[in-house]
Amino acid sequence: MPAITLLTDFGTADHYVAEMKGVLLSRAPGVTLVDVTHGIAPGDIRSGAYILGRTWHHFLSGTIHLVVVDPGVGSARAPLALCAHGHLFVGPDNGVFTPVLRDTQVEAVVLSTPISAAPTFHGRDLFAPAAAALASGMPLHGLGEPFPDVPQRLAYTEPHYEGKTVVGEIIYIDRFGSLVTNLTVELVPSYATLEVEDLDLGPVRRTFSDVPPGALLAYVGSGGAIEIAVRNGSAARRLGVGVGGRVRARLG
Amino acid sequence: MPAITLLTDFGTADHYVAEMKGVLLSRAPGVTLVDVTHGIAPGDIRSGAYILGRTWHHFLSGTIHLVVVDPGVGSARAPLALCAHGHLFVGPDNGVFTPVLRDTQVEAVVLSTPISAAPTFHGRDLFAPAAAALASGMPLHGLGEPFPDVPQRLAYTEPHYEGKTVVGEIIYIDRFGSLVTNLTVELVPSYATLEVEDLDLGPVRRTFSDVPPGALLAYVGSGGAIEIAVRNGSAARRLGVGVGGRVRARLG
Amino acid sequence: MPAITLLTDFGTADHYVAEMKGVLLSRAPGVTLVDVTHGIAPGDIRSGAYILGRTWHHFLSGTIHLVVVDPGVGSARAPLALCAHGHLFVGPDNGVFTPVLRDTQVEAVVLSTPISAAPTFHGRDLFAPAAAALASGMPLHGLGEPFPDVPQRLAYTEPHYEGKTVVGEIIYIDRFGSLVTNLTVELVPSYATLEVEDLDLGPVRRTFSDVPPGALLAYVGSGGAIEIAVRNGSAARRLGVGVGGRVRARLG
Repeated sequence: MPAITLLTDFGTADHYVAEMKGVLLSRAPGVTLVDVTHGIAPGDIRSGAYILGRTWHHFLSGTIHLVVVDPGVGSARAPLALCAHGHLFVGPDNGVFTPVLRDTQVEAVVLSTPISAAPTFHGRDLFAPAAAALASGMPLHGLGEPFPDVPQRLAYTEPHYEGKTVVGEIIYIDRFGSLVTNLTVELVPSYATLEVEDLDLGPVRRTFSDVPPGALLAYVGSGGAIEIAVRNGSAARRLGVGVGGRVRARLG
Repeated sequence: MPAITLLTDFGTADHYVAEMKGVLLSRAPGVTLVDVTHGIAPGDIRSGAYILGRTWHHFLSGTIHLVVVDPGVGSARAPLALCAHGHLFVGPDNGVFTPVLRDTQVEAVVLSTPISAAPTFHGRDLFAPAAAALASGMPLHGLGEPFPDVPQRLAYTEPHYEGKTVVGEIIYIDRFGSLVTNLTVELVPSYATLEVEDLDLGPVRRTFSDVPPGALLAYVGSGGAIEIAVRNGSAARRLGVGVGGRVRARLG
Repeated sequence: MPAITLLTDFGTADHYVAEMKGVLLSRAPGVTLVDVTHGIAPGDIRSGAYILGRTWHHFLSGTIHLVVVDPGVGSARAPLALCAHGHLFVGPDNGVFTPVLRDTQVEAVVLSTPISAAPTFHGRDLFAPAAAALASGMPLHGLGEPFPDVPQRLAYTEPHYEGKTVVGEIIYIDRFGSLVTNLTVELVPSYATLEVEDLDLGPVRRTFSDVPPGALLAYVGSGGAIEIAVRNGSAARRLGVGVGGRVRARLG
């Protein structure tokens, strides 16, 4: 039986995740459940998409990814199940699936909402039952009618050139206070020097210990994008910048 | 083998939960463990009971629910294993099992505390071994003598009528800052209008998107009780009310 | 198949733990994963070692413990897999394994880092693959060359005597605000009286309810060391002391 991953903004202090797990284990006994995270800030679709993009491809083909960051729960937004890259995804059509929609054929169906579903908890009453059905062998098309539209995609600011400089921005900040940018390794050659908020970070480093403790550095992060960190510290706290902050890679 | 759920106030930063899981997996190898939550505030039996009441029934019959919110650990409070509604429950007799004791026959036994049990960690040395034994097929009565008393129940303030108004209170606040009340859907007809702290919330809504972003609303929550929220925000922060705060449903 | 435990400083809000779990489940399908904690403060090797010491021995012999508290990731510190006490451990050679190196023969190998490994995420690209290989039956020596050195050990301050007083210190503070000391039960007879920061705590108690609510107490903790707590409260907050704070046991 394929595993089911869970990615939500429910937190872990309340009952929401456990209610979903009860439903999943009741309908697909013995299924392996993997928490991706429940720590997405309430309704933060953009961070949910980022985390999904960083994780889904590390799991086996056929894995079911249950993604419930759903501020529009109970509204007209379509509840979807979709297949992309050989993986299955279940959740709301609000852009959270953006990173899995690129460079692939996507098959999507609209889940039919049971009358009894709580309008504020589709994670439990609609999405978890769909994920459990998929885990139990139900084909995608058994779950609902084909989705007539294209799933929503978030709009991202693309990096741009200003002369010999590539200008990008910070798209995510992790628990270490490291700043993840939208400057991928393809855009930034190894001889580039980085700048954030007018601060010169020098060349792209390999890892934290290439600079002294407490120093800022830029490096190619484990997701393939330039990141900015403080060795043994927090770049977010040091620099006071947030998501959207400007980053420059000087190529000349 | 039935699954074991874990509900504690141990947090997840320390070693306590992992010590319990080591004991569970050593004594019942291969058992499925499900974290309900470990985020109950230290010793908050009332919240533990609330979370238990929201979750246990979503799991398969025969599931073992290990509940360790136990401020009286090592004292005279009885350590129990009990069967109710076809589910098994293990933990201290301090009221935390209140929501599973209603409308059912309860069979309970007193666990015998091993001499070697740490007086401050019965979760690991008494309750986890009992849960693992149940998962391995031990009958309830194999775990100890029948409990001669009735398990403790928490006293709850019941909603009351003031003329054509039902007066209730807030009993739980979730991570979204939504206020869960003790006004169940049976008490509040769909034509009622809600009030909290002298603020008029209007009629009972279906879901968040029935009001504009940032607006307050009352709706029937996914547990069957009236809840108060702010769309894309926190009602707790907006209103500054806490557990025990008054809520009124005007029926006329 | 043996279980794999995970102990990291990655937190649970980001993607790091899920990336590791994806790798583990892809390479060792069906393996049982147990989160010990991901709440170690970033780079806090000492707390990581403490948590490891409190947990590993509760698991079955043969369990694989994946420990990634690795502030020197990508630097010259050796990546290790080791066998001690019949358990397997995978992680960096930075002292985090100190509690498992005592009183035992240790067999250790140096993992060979794949060229493709991200220099800032050996947890995913080096340690998780090694743990998965061990879970799948690979012998320790299949993972790399014998480690020619002795794994690093953290230096701990040992308790010392001042006349008839044993002087120790606080080594860990848990979520309840309880202060764990390095005074083991072997050093502190039951007739001793305890002191912290010139405050007299009286004799060693059995459990919290031996003192009134809100009172300070010292007791033998569930790990076999003297701990200091406030019944229904936080000793850390009450006393304002931290790790390294002095504790005295008067024997006369």
